[in-house]
Formats: sequence, structure tokens, C-alpha cells
Amino acid sequence: MKKLFAEFFGTYWLVFGGCGSALFAAGYPDLGIGFAGVALAFGLTVLTMAYAVGHISGGHFNPAVSIGLWAGGRFSAKELASYILSQCAGAILAAGTLFLILSGKPGFAIDNTKAGAFASNGFGAFSPDGYSMGAAFLAEFVLTMFFLLIILGATDKFANGKVAGVAIGLALTLIHLVSIPITNTSVNPARSLSQAVFAGGEPLSQVWLFWVAPIAGALLGGYLYKTLLQKNETE
Amino acid sequence: MKKLFAEFFGTYWLVFGGCGSALFAAGYPDLGIGFAGVALAFGLTVLTMAYAVGHISGGHFNPAVSIGLWAGGRFSAKELASYILSQCAGAILAAGTLFLILSGKPGFAIDNTKAGAFASNGFGAFSPDGYSMGAAFLAEFVLTMFFLLIILGATDKFANGKVAGVAIGLALTLIHLVSIPITNTSVNPARSLSQAVFAGGEPLSQVWLFWVAPIAGALLGGYLYKTLLQKNETE
Amino acid sequence: MKKLFAEFFGTYWLVFGGCGSALFAAGYPDLGIGFAGVALAFGLTVLTMAYAVGHISGGHFNPAVSIGLWAGGRFSAKELASYILSQCAGAILAAGTLFLILSGKPGFAIDNTKAGAFASNGFGAFSPDGYSMGAAFLAEFVLTMFFLLIILGATDKFANGKVAGVAIGLALTLIHLVSIPITNTSVNPARSLSQAVFAGGEPLSQVWLFWVAPIAGALLGGYLYKTLLQKNETE
Amino acid sequence: MKKLFAEFFGTYWLVFGGCGSALFAAGYPDLGIGFAGVALAFGLTVLTMAYAVGHISGGHFNPAVSIGLWAGGRFSAKELASYILSQCAGAILAAGTLFLILSGKPGFAIDNTKAGAFASNGFGAFSPDGYSMGAAFLAEFVLTMFFLLIILGATDKFANGKVAGVAIGLALTLIHLVSIPITNTSVNPARSLSQAVFAGGEPLSQVWLFWVAPIAGALLGGYLYKTLLQKNETE
Repeated sequence: MKKLFAEFFGTYWLVFGGCGSALFAAGYPDLGIGFAGVALAFGLTVLTMAYAVGHISGGHFNPAVSIGLWAGGRFSAKELASYILSQCAGAILAAGTLFLILSGKPGFAIDNTKAGAFASNGFGAFSPDGYSMGAAFLAEFVLTMFFLLIILGATDKFANGKVAGVAIGLALTLIHLVSIPITNTSVNPARSLSQAVFAGGEPLSQVWLFWVAPIAGALLGGYLYKTLLQKNETE
Repeated sequence: MKKLFAEFFGTYWLVFGGCGSALFAAGYPDLGIGFAGVALAFGLTVLTMAYAVGHISGGHFNPAVSIGLWAGGRFSAKELASYILSQCAGAILAAGTLFLILSGKPGFAIDNTKAGAFASNGFGAFSPDGYSMGAAFLAEFVLTMFFLLIILGATDKFANGKVAGVAIGLALTLIHLVSIPITNTSVNPARSLSQAVFAGGEPLSQVWLFWVAPIAGALLGGYLYKTLLQKNETE
Repeated sequence: MKKLFAEFFGTYWLVFGGCGSALFAAGYPDLGIGFAGVALAFGLTVLTMAYAVGHISGGHFNPAVSIGLWAGGRFSAKELASYILSQCAGAILAAGTLFLILSGKPGFAIDNTKAGAFASNGFGAFSPDGYSMGAAFLAEFVLTMFFLLIILGATDKFANGKVAGVAIGLALTLIHLVSIPITNTSVNPARSLSQAVFAGGEPLSQVWLFWVAPIAGALLGGYLYKTLLQKNETE
Repeated sequence: MKKLFAEFFGTYWLVFGGCGSALFAAGYPDLGIGFAGVALAFGLTVLTMAYAVGHISGGHFNPAVSIGLWAGGRFSAKELASYILSQCAGAILAAGTLFLILSGKPGFAIDNTKAGAFASNGFGAFSPDGYSMGAAFLAEFVLTMFFLLIILGATDKFANGKVAGVAIGLALTLIHLVSIPITNTSVNPARSLSQAVFAGGEPLSQVWLFWVAPIAGALLGGYLYKTLLQKNETE
């Protein structure tokens, strides 16, 4: 049960901190934090929670990560469903909190005819820079695959585990530095779902891609690490 | 006594570095550091002092943190008052030093009819982006609650303590990346008090919220960690 | 064989993440990440992969680094060729993936008459800020020499190895903070080759400098560390 | 002798990387790294070299740090002169390299009638934001004093030494985030001297303050740590 609370709080923080920085602070006139600040914020949500509750639940905060860790042989299939449910619940509650706070700003409204509405992910006309569905899929696929390679490598028993949380958190920062203009960056189905639920409309219709592509990439990442990179005990 | 000096110097540095970066460097034409730079500065004040004097006093530098650590069962009630006094004294002396340096800039004056005067916190008309009192309260409450979850988790005896100072410092950076437009970010009653004392006027009238909301959030954070997340010895 | 996969994936990630951030996100209107964001992205590619696969291959991801480590007495000559081939293969495949994703953006085309086309390196008219060939050579030479000093020092058996990946990754960030305007920053022949192959034209004609200068600097860096700085066992 | 080479290379890197980022990249149109990027660069010079050669020389790279460490009882008086000479030699050679590279940029010339010429430090009309001599002195004094508190605390035998290089490097980033607009940030007499020598004119006339204020602050920082914060063996 403690594990599920840890995943719940961690994913809440990921959405509240990451999407919150995008919604509150990215475009503030002159002094706003821009995409680089949002990228840093997303990475720091994972970095901070990895050290806070990683020792409790392993610190996934992301259904694609849980599935990729299973593919890599590091997580049991029977815990998958409860982890993913906790992650989605935390994400949706965080999105609700963001909505509540934004409602206290004069003139706030979600315009779901625009890319990135309520920090949602999208492609085509809903990609921040107009990237096609294929480009969006490829980007999300490759980035999540490497995210899993990094997670599996940094937490390998042959690696230096103490700094793993820094490496994994900053990997998410890097992923956002690359891909916010392409899809507004998902690599995390829970984070995509929570924002799409509140945005509705076309962003919600597109949310399937941000489940399929990250999970497919995570599965390949887990498989590649296990087969090509993992050292044997006897090596 | 060494503990109190450590808290005094640490909170001085938090206010001097964090509020100083906002006052001196955030809005410098073209090359200014913006909200992201201020967010980084606040986080680095805690990161640096956590490694400098954390081994002496625990490195709170924040009355809400001291109170939340007490709620989490990690700090004794009888030390609370002296810690908080040292923190407020350090913060106020730092604000005085900032005032002295700014007085050496031609044309310097505090205009306390504007949001963020002398790096003060505020809501409503004194929120940088016009957020209501309720939104400001909710943001400060949630952010301080998670700040305590992170502090309690990262310093848990089951966690990897060596990197705790990095995680905790960067948590404060993250908090600022999210919320400068909402309240100019407090999560720290001492930092709010020191700036409000020099700003006076409406910013001083609003300072109550930046004691009540962070402390309430810290109390809940401490309680939640203890009851939902803390592992038992025997687990 | 695992070593070569590790170098392949690592260099793929360096090019995909570093050059990708430049191509997708640096110049996005208003919110783009700028040179500082690209600098952070390049550094984080190395930081993340150092922790992910450093325990497998040593984490070079750069022909100049492999050669400099050989000069410093830390890498065997007989592994050089296979490492460099794996690095170049990973880099070129990453550049191909970037090309594919960019092809999904309306109006995408590489204009190889301009500095920095497809994130290529260059000097003279192909330097982002018009620096001469001599200045470009000197900058690449000095920066790669120090990159090797840092790598050799941080991984020295007398040093604190656990944080070496952080120091080495952030060294690459620092190098980019300094020199993007000079050469678009190489210090890595594989990264220069992959982008030049796709850019063609003058950027491809200039790629020789980004093999010669970094490798020369790396050789000197390796030699200087070994002769002036390396402690003996008995010291 | 290895110690002096380490200090020479380290201070070269501090000036080449820190002042280089300011000269080459801070003001690049639209994409430039600004003061925040320069702040990060300065900090990363120290962070990277602390891990590279800290195990050889202690990693001072700054006459004020050497003097403050002596005041704190951590460095011997008889090594002071040779350390400071090595630091100044490295700084001046780095400034010469920067000059050489800049000479390869069409239209380069040092205009020493302006604040920050060749990345020099200054006050009054030579402060980037017009701060008076008194304000400049106070800022340099306080910032260097805290720099020493952080260095002495983070390297204390009771502290967690492995991460000290991160904390100390990022302390220099923080110091720059606060004070570039005030004095262009020194806290390092060697860095001030090297740039002033090449700038000449008024920047050279003002260089005295950037020896006196940082050294005075460092002396007080060393003294305060030793007397108020340092734990005894028996505590």
C-alpha cells in the first residue's frame, strides 16, 4: 500500500510541477521561464521524488516506465495494474488542482482548439510546431526507448546507483529540451491522460498516440537493455 | 548555539541570494536572468548551505520546514522557537543588506503599490499575474506540503542521504519555476516576513497568508509522510 | 560486443539529444531554449549515458575522447578502431532519425549555404558569429584539451569517481556555453561527421577541422595529464 | 609542483570558460545565453575542475579562496604565495587565449570606456547597472564571505565531502546570478586581474577593489567558520 501512495504522490508532483510550470510560468511576459524552464521543472519533479519516495516504490511515476521495467525484467507483472492506476489517479488529481488554481486568475479559460491547451500533448495541428503524426510517433517512441535504457542502466546493480535519481530526472529534462515543439512532450501516458481529460476536444481524441508510442518505445528499450547491454553475473 | 548560527547564516543566504537575484538581476535588459534564474538561485541557496551547515543544524532555513519536521517526528518541539527566531533574524538582516546595496544604485526606491515590491510575496492585485487569494493559498499550501514530503523522504534513514541536499535544494528551484507568477513564491515565512518588513504597505498586510498557508501545508506534509509513507524498522 | 552497443547507443543519444534540441527547440519563437538550452542538452546526453552505460564501455561517445584516453594511458590502442566505428555509426543513425522527424514538419529543408545548417559545425562564413578558421581551430583545440583533463582527472583512481559522470557531462555543457557562437561547438568528430554528411556542401568540406582540432587537443590533454598531473602510486 | 600545475590549469579554465562564455555567447542575438548562462558557466568551471584536480591541489583557483582557507585553518601560509602566483599566471594566459580567439572575429576591439569591457569588473560608471563603489564593495565582501563559509562547511570532515565540488561550483553560479549587474561579479582577484590587464584604462584602475573586497570577505568568512561553526572533535 505504501508503494501505491508513493506512486500517487510522485505522479501528482510530476503533473503539478511539470504541467504547472508550463501553465503558470512559461509564457509570462519578458521574465517567463520558456521551454527550458519547463524542461527543468519536469526533470526536477522526477529527481526530487526519486530521492523522496524511490526507496519506497522504485519511483516510476509513469505507466510506460512501469511497463518498460517489466520488459527489462525488473518489475513484476502482477503489480503493473495497481501502479498504473495509482499513477493515473495522482495525475488526474494534480490536473484538477492546477485547474482550481488557474480558475483564480482573471480571464482563465481552456481553449482546446489550440496546440498545448491545458498543457496537453498533440500532433499535426495540435503539435506546437506543426509536426505530423508520424514525426510525433517517432519522437515519442525513440525518446521513451532511451528513457528506459537510461533508467535500466543507471539502476543496474553494476552501476553507481547513488546518483541514479539525478541521471534519470535530468534525462526527463533532456527529453523535454528536445521535444516540446514536436508534441509538447509526453513520454508518460498518465501525464497525457490527465491533461487531455481536462482539455477535452481534439487533445482528448489524440491521447491514444501518447499511450501507444511511449509504451511501445518503453517495451523496446526494456528488451534492448536486457538482451544487448545487461552484463551477466559471471562477466 | 552553533545550530542557531548555522540557521542564521543559512537563512541570511537564502534571502540574500534568492531575493537578491530577483532584485538585482531578474529584469536586467536583454541579458537578465528572468524567473528561471531566480528559481535556480533560490534552490542553490539551500543546496549550498545544506552541504555547508546541514551537518550542524540540519539545514532548515525556513520556519515552515522546522514545523513540518516536527510534525513528521524528526525535530523536537523545544527547539522550534529558537530555530524560528534565528531564521527570521537572518532573513531580516539579509533584507537590510539588500536594501543597503540597492541604495547605491541611482534612482532606487521601493514602490509598494506594485506586485513583488522589494521581492515581497502577494496575492490579488499583489500577485505578479493577478491570482486570487484562494489560488495563492492553495498553491502555497500544496507546494509546501510537497516540499516537506521531499525533505522527509530524502533524509529518511532508508533513503540515499548523500544526495539529499541536491534533491531538497532543487525542489525549491522547482517550486519557484511553478509559482513565481502566482505569489512571487514564498513557501517560507521568514523570507516573506523580511521582504514585507522593508516593503511595508499592502505587501506587509498580506504577509499573514505566507505564514498560514506554508505552515499548514508543512504540517499536513509531515503528517502524511509519517502516516502513509514512512517504513517501519521491521518492514 | 556489449561495449560497442553501449558506445553506439550513447553516441546516438548525444547526437539525437544535443543536435535535436538545437534543430527542434533552440529558435522556437519567444519560448525557445536558445544556446543555453542546447548546451544543457548536450551535457545531459553525456551525463545520462555515463550513468546508463558507463559501467559497460567507459562511456566515451566521442572519437576524440577515446584517442585522448589512449594518450593518457587509460585505453588500449587495439580497441580504438571499433569504438570509433561504433560511435560514428550511432551518430549517423541519429542524424538520420532527426532528418526523418524534421521531414514531418511543413516546409522543412536543409539550407547548407548558412552557418549551422542541420546543426553542422563550421568556421569563417559558416561560423555562427563569423570567427576565422584559426580562431575556430584554437577554440576547438583548447576546449577538447580541457575536456580530456577533466575526464582523466575525474576518473582518476585518486579522485571521487561516483560524481565523475556529473562533472564530465556538465563539462560538455560548459564547453557549449562558451563556443556555440564560434564553431557551433564540436569537440566531437563523430557529432561533426554525422551532421555534415546530411548537410553536405560547404559544411561537409569543413568537417576536417572538427576531426583534426579536437583530436590534437585530446592528444595534448591526455599527454599533459599523464606527465604533469597524474600522481604516482607511491606519492 | 603538481599542485601548482593543477591550480594553473584550474584557474585558466575558470577564466577561459567563465569570461569566455560572457565574451562569446552572452549577448548573441536572440539565442544568447545571457547572465544566467554566464553564471552557470562560471560555476561549472569550478565544479568540473574540483573533480578533475581537486584531489591534487585542493581546487582553489582563486587567491581569495586560498587566503580564506588559511584564515579558516585549512591551508598553510607558506604555500600561499606559490598558489596565488600559479592562479594569476593561469588567469592571464587564459585571458590571452580569449583575446587571440576574439581577434579572429571581424570588427573585434576592446572598448574600455564601457562597463564590462573584456569581461572586466567595475563599479560606478563601470558597474553594468551603475552601482556605487560602496555597494560594489559590500556585495563583493558579503558574497566572498559566504563563498568561504560554503567551501569550509562543505569540505568539513563532519560533512558529506563527495558532493562538495557540486555545492562549491554551484555556489559560484549562485553568486553570479545575484551580482553580475552590480560588479560583473569577481569574488576572485585572479579573474579580475587577468581581464583588467587586457582591458586597461579605467577597468585596470578599479581592479584594486576586486582584490581588497573579496580578500577581506574571505578572511572574515574563514574566521567566522572557525569560531562560530566548526565542531570540535569531542562534540
